[in-house]
Amino acid sequence: MTASVDTNFAMLDDIIESTWNEILTTSELVTAIKAGRISKELYVMYMIETYHYTSHNARNQALAGVTHAAGNPVYGKFCFHHAAGETGHEKMALHDLLSTGMDQSSFAIPEPLPATETLIGYLYWISMQGNPYRRLGYSYWAESSYQYINPLVRGVKDSLGLADSQLTFFVAHSEIDDDHAKEVRLMLERTCKNDADWRAVAEAAQTSLRLTGRMIEAVFDEYQHLMNDKSWRYAALRPATCVSA
Amino acid sequence: MTASVDTNFAMLDDIIESTWNEILTTSELVTAIKAGRISKELYVMYMIETYHYTSHNARNQALAGVTHAAGNPVYGKFCFHHAAGETGHEKMALHDLLSTGMDQSSFAIPEPLPATETLIGYLYWISMQGNPYRRLGYSYWAESSYQYINPLVRGVKDSLGLADSQLTFFVAHSEIDDDHAKEVRLMLERTCKNDADWRAVAEAAQTSLRLTGRMIEAVFDEYQHLMNDKSWRYAALRPATCVSA
Amino acid sequence: MTASVDTNFAMLDDIIESTWNEILTTSELVTAIKAGRISKELYVMYMIETYHYTSHNARNQALAGVTHAAGNPVYGKFCFHHAAGETGHEKMALHDLLSTGMDQSSFAIPEPLPATETLIGYLYWISMQGNPYRRLGYSYWAESSYQYINPLVRGVKDSLGLADSQLTFFVAHSEIDDDHAKEVRLMLERTCKNDADWRAVAEAAQTSLRLTGRMIEAVFDEYQHLMNDKSWRYAALRPATCVSA
Amino acid sequence: MTASVDTNFAMLDDIIESTWNEILTTSELVTAIKAGRISKELYVMYMIETYHYTSHNARNQALAGVTHAAGNPVYGKFCFHHAAGETGHEKMALHDLLSTGMDQSSFAIPEPLPATETLIGYLYWISMQGNPYRRLGYSYWAESSYQYINPLVRGVKDSLGLADSQLTFFVAHSEIDDDHAKEVRLMLERTCKNDADWRAVAEAAQTSLRLTGRMIEAVFDEYQHLMNDKSWRYAALRPATCVSA
Repeated sequence: MTASVDTNFAMLDDIIESTWNEILTTSELVTAIKAGRISKELYVMYMIETYHYTSHNARNQALAGVTHAAGNPVYGKFCFHHAAGETGHEKMALHDLLSTGMDQSSFAIPEPLPATETLIGYLYWISMQGNPYRRLGYSYWAESSYQYINPLVRGVKDSLGLADSQLTFFVAHSEIDDDHAKEVRLMLERTCKNDADWRAVAEAAQTSLRLTGRMIEAVFDEYQHLMNDKSWRYAALRPATCVSA
Repeated sequence: MTASVDTNFAMLDDIIESTWNEILTTSELVTAIKAGRISKELYVMYMIETYHYTSHNARNQALAGVTHAAGNPVYGKFCFHHAAGETGHEKMALHDLLSTGMDQSSFAIPEPLPATETLIGYLYWISMQGNPYRRLGYSYWAESSYQYINPLVRGVKDSLGLADSQLTFFVAHSEIDDDHAKEVRLMLERTCKNDADWRAVAEAAQTSLRLTGRMIEAVFDEYQHLMNDKSWRYAALRPATCVSA
Repeated sequence: MTASVDTNFAMLDDIIESTWNEILTTSELVTAIKAGRISKELYVMYMIETYHYTSHNARNQALAGVTHAAGNPVYGKFCFHHAAGETGHEKMALHDLLSTGMDQSSFAIPEPLPATETLIGYLYWISMQGNPYRRLGYSYWAESSYQYINPLVRGVKDSLGLADSQLTFFVAHSEIDDDHAKEVRLMLERTCKNDADWRAVAEAAQTSLRLTGRMIEAVFDEYQHLMNDKSWRYAALRPATCVSA
Repeated sequence: MTASVDTNFAMLDDIIESTWNEILTTSELVTAIKAGRISKELYVMYMIETYHYTSHNARNQALAGVTHAAGNPVYGKFCFHHAAGETGHEKMALHDLLSTGMDQSSFAIPEPLPATETLIGYLYWISMQGNPYRRLGYSYWAESSYQYINPLVRGVKDSLGLADSQLTFFVAHSEIDDDHAKEVRLMLERTCKNDADWRAVAEAAQTSLRLTGRMIEAVFDEYQHLMNDKSWRYAALRPATCVSA
């Protein structure tokens, strides 16, 4: 029985690793970061989209609890507890993007990109529909993604000369999420009873990670539009001097 | 400023006290309990309705957070945290009603009474609509209601010869809710900024308490129907020997 | 089989008739209207609360369809079609109350009374939870209520000297709703398959009618508060000269 | 002013045309159809996914009305009316896929593919969040897509030797949707007041069409998995003799 759980986690880790590899090898944003071609504007755009989806995470997490607490109070309690832990994290993303010198008075945060909304909409959907444990698939990769993300964060930090105090979102998350990751793992062990549960979780993990990858690329595409004066969404970022990625 | 908050709490306490007095002086169920005319069936019916509305409390509490967390993360976090604390409490009500000797195999819990659903529907409504802090009005009276309820619980306990271990819902709640009550008070202090906020909270407190009072009376009315063989909802309770209230 | 449907409608009609009789014989607002003691302010207050709950009817009707269309497309289609027919009816209530000479510039429509919100919350609840056909119970009495309401409307009209063009809500509804009433009846015949369905519909009809009765009384109570300068909600109506009911 | 509306429709048509071209030129499923390499199983898989998203269209359309009817009754009425018109259309998709000789007794419709759920989740999201008119962007392309789809439908029909009576979904839709398309156009003219509205509609149109394109590709990918005995989702389709696409 323990073996079976281990097998399921191994399968889950494989899917996540291969999906991260898809993203890391094909992403133009990742390539730009690795080559030191990241501009402040591109970073700000990424953090704005991060701000957007992060602002929904506690809420869709809680909705998973609202939907499933009656049938499964242990899981419901986990969802609400976890939602409490995630509330307000978007403020860190906001702090970080403002700390780069963005002039808040001349800049209103634009509506999220379509790719960001696609991710957000999917996360609400899996929280309320279908297999009850799917939202755990998102948490599982999101809270153990720092091995993949940290090299990129370091690249951005070096290129833009940012201090740790300007990277509260990533620094704080890598600490907070370590405990969360263990709780998510424990909850998966307790709730997933059969192949159908594990498949549903794995599919939701892969899909939410892929949609995150698409959001990353959409940020890069929008930045190209901005450089070509074709981004109505981020036009307010243009007056500043930009280094083309 | 402290004075003003004190005044607002005094107003809130007055409204709750007078509403409790309305209920305690006019309720036929309360009169029956005080006169020792409470039967096991009547108690079971009360606990079934309690089971129903309690099973929604964590969920509507969390929905208040889902609705308001974006604009007010401190309040959102409170809602999710509080929801986690309330999850599964309906199991205590279920345990207690089964401990009276109900034969679970011959008895399916009936749908809630209309008065119970009216309360439940109202609590969802105020959690998602109108002034964001209204759900606190319900918590405020519900978690400091033991001064009003404890004498009744003692009456039921004595009349039916129940042990504390058969009254887990009421015993556990009077302990748990003491801390919750303080947190609710603190949250009201932090969130209510003006007369409109306090009025909205006070009105929601009074309305949810009145609807609870109506639920109590509806239990008593349904019990009369049962005694007259006119309750299709609770007919399964009838074969047992009942003491008429 | 036809006989059984007839019996069920007869039962439904009996419950509605006796509930209307409860309201008509105990309501202080009804007594005031019959005695010609209705003031313009009292009528305006009633129409404002009517405006509030009416503005939700199309939406909760549509939500019944959203919730149940997958399992029952015929019923889902009815719900959406009916919702289209009810959309915007609150504008008639608004027109009528403004036509009494209310000065819109000095008057913002206050939040609904708690009794009105209790009705609204209940209607959303039954549209989304429990037996799928409960919302039909509300439509059934609401769209054939003109025999009970028309004498009261005439009383108000005579007392306040209103023209038909100032009573669009009631006049239009008695025409529109005649067709709706037939459609509701037909839908009940098609959807209700067993005693449980008919009981659920009858209970929802009775409960929603009783909550409407309580809303009516709450309007009267609030008017008394206004006369005693204790209504913060409707205080803006006070400067005008009022005839005490 | 008329010119401006024409310009906006022209922009919308351009975006939709170029997005269709993206799909038609890169889609492996489209290539397979054009080359006559479409198998019954591949067609059945496509119709099952079509069944899934279609079963939500009336519901998310109605939710757009629930969300926006209060502020905009004309638009709300349109949404409810349109939802009534779309209710149950998934039954046509079901009919068509069963008419190919699928043995219903040995086959349960599997859960939708992740790409299908991503589309569904996005459609619910835009119906309830952000610019109120975004759902119109989906209707706009969906109900005038027959110029793009009809050649493909003919290809499938010829390859699989299907009669019109086995293609009710596509045949009926091309007739029904002609009127709908005009109503959608009219509603866009009435509701879209400024650049922000038109941009929001155009972005929702493009995004929902791209997600539909991804769903189409996901069907093709899943079919390849099935051919390689790696599709747990559609495994029940495998025992039949399949022509590899």
